Amino acid sequence: MAKRVGRYTIRFEKAPAIKSYASIAGKKEGEGPLAKEFDEINTDSTFGEKTWEKAESRLQNNVLNKALQKANITPASVDIVFAGDLLNQCIGTSYGLRESGIPFAGLYGACSTMAESLSMAAVFVDGGYANIAAALTSSHFCTAERQYRCPLEYGGQRPQSAQWTVTGAGAVILDLNGNGPFIREITLGRIVDLGIKDVNNMGAAMAPAAADTISNYFSDTGAKPGDFDLIATGDLAFVGSELLKDLLKEQGIELKANYSDCGLMIFDREKQDVHSGGSGCGCSASVLCSYILNNLCSGNFKEVLFISTGALMSPISIQQGQSIPAVAHLIHISNRP
Amino acid sequence: MAKRVGRYTIRFEKAPAIKSYASIAGKKEGEGPLAKEFDEINTDSTFGEKTWEKAESRLQNNVLNKALQKANITPASVDIVFAGDLLNQCIGTSYGLRESGIPFAGLYGACSTMAESLSMAAVFVDGGYANIAAALTSSHFCTAERQYRCPLEYGGQRPQSAQWTVTGAGAVILDLNGNGPFIREITLGRIVDLGIKDVNNMGAAMAPAAADTISNYFSDTGAKPGDFDLIATGDLAFVGSELLKDLLKEQGIELKANYSDCGLMIFDREKQDVHSGGSGCGCSASVLCSYILNNLCSGNFKEVLFISTGALMSPISIQQGQSIPAVAHLIHISNRP
Repeated sequence: MAKRVGRYTIRFEKAPAIKSYASIAGKKEGEGPLAKEFDEINTDSTFGEKTWEKAESRLQNNVLNKALQKANITPASVDIVFAGDLLNQCIGTSYGLRESGIPFAGLYGACSTMAESLSMAAVFVDGGYANIAAALTSSHFCTAERQYRCPLEYGGQRPQSAQWTVTGAGAVILDLNGNGPFIREITLGRIVDLGIKDVNNMGAAMAPAAADTISNYFSDTGAKPGDFDLIATGDLAFVGSELLKDLLKEQGIELKANYSDCGLMIFDREKQDVHSGGSGCGCSASVLCSYILNNLCSGNFKEVLFISTGALMSPISIQQGQSIPAVAHLIHISNRP
Repeated sequence: MAKRVGRYTIRFEKAPAIKSYASIAGKKEGEGPLAKEFDEINTDSTFGEKTWEKAESRLQNNVLNKALQKANITPASVDIVFAGDLLNQCIGTSYGLRESGIPFAGLYGACSTMAESLSMAAVFVDGGYANIAAALTSSHFCTAERQYRCPLEYGGQRPQSAQWTVTGAGAVILDLNGNGPFIREITLGRIVDLGIKDVNNMGAAMAPAAADTISNYFSDTGAKPGDFDLIATGDLAFVGSELLKDLLKEQGIELKANYSDCGLMIFDREKQDVHSGGSGCGCSASVLCSYILNNLCSGNFKEVLFISTGALMSPISIQQGQSIPAVAHLIHISNRP
């Protein structure tokens, strides 16, 4: 059961337990600092398929199967799956999950999808609407480039504020009972748009949404940044996370050494030429389902705030001169029951 | 509180109440058989905006405001809004709801979005995760044509199995207490794909998903088609609803005169040249939020099954030779508490 805390936060009295989780990363991600944390590194960007879009569907299919396997259950035990991706009409998800036979609730939250799907799964499990629920998402560098920017063959250059879409996926299986880690609280975000129009600067567009959700969480709960072993945003990368710190500082909230961004953790910016850092639904998903949950399971982390951030524009809205709306959803994960 | 009934169905013990609802329809829809049922008919397809996509965002904005106004509440009273649309990256929704300030969970269920969003809203309200929740969606003929098919200027011809995307929107505000109608049960659908590849025959692609969800509901609950005043699918139109009847008949479920499809109700196929009938997220949304709920409120209908149907392909998946996966979500709405 849950109660509402303040205007925006939901607290689970008996926190849903993470039964299993899985991450799959691509070649470049597998050469980064988190290499040892992933369940699987696939060095073939095609994932054995003939198009990039089919590759991304395969990735979602694989990561769900991996998580089910780690939980030692079949799809027939899962009452609902919440998932989405960045592609037009979320085809990474619909084709990837087509054969699972699990009741399906499709989401579109752009790169906020991991936190959004996990929030929905937590609510369904907490209230008994599902006994077991799955949450997952993915992104693929090659599908995202050709859809949002240029076909890969163009070899287009980008400014230093641009980010590198992660090829990767993460999946979580939730159960009401278990050894954890546990989903203790969620804060669902509002759409925030401060007028950024530069599609090569997603971090700047998303930072205000992250600041809004984080500050709502702290004001709803009375918690402080120091209460957490890690506060991780999803894919603000270098530019966006600096802006986030400034925006929160203006509100009297100081993010210190326990703050980082999944887009900064997954790549080595010095060596991997990813400009501002990583991005994509798969960025926060694969970092959550490897480094973050591994450390919660081992007891290195006790309390974590995980905030996936999504930019809600499309190439068409940008061509029409619109600015970039963004949203961020927050999850408080703990290793105590 | 709720309990799971069978493998797929959730039954709300104290059914969430529809506090208000609103529908807005376009010019062609306003010339159809349901003209008198809509809250508003807008004869200007631009909705006062300079692009079709901005027009669709305006439509979502307007229908939410209309529903809030009918409930006599402000956005600040709404704890969460579930919404989505057909456009790439769901920009109808993200720009349409940008200024609302309501915590936002974006969905992508294609034309199943009205039933999907209403299901999520019902769960959140039932379990106390939200005091008041909103569910809405839209479609617009001109955005859908140029994105899924051809720019309007081409004046492309289509076969008789093709459908006409509804310009319209519907929004529902849910509360735990109220005079109803009430959301009694939901059955969330699985992705079903029987291999249809013809994008001019969405009804055929979606009918198997509708059959799967409807038959799951009947087998979970023991209910029978005769128990309902109306069983309404979302946008199978003429071709798809005939197929649905055949598919269900094979399973021993006979749909009779109390069955219809929102895509058949909203247009007069004899006079309005819409080929197989209406389609789009806005089709089932605007029919639910006018004719169906009006009749539940007046007591003409006591028990209704509402099943929105979505085709989950994209132009890219079709170009890559993939078939069309589909999903259907079912809601049992009743006027008894």
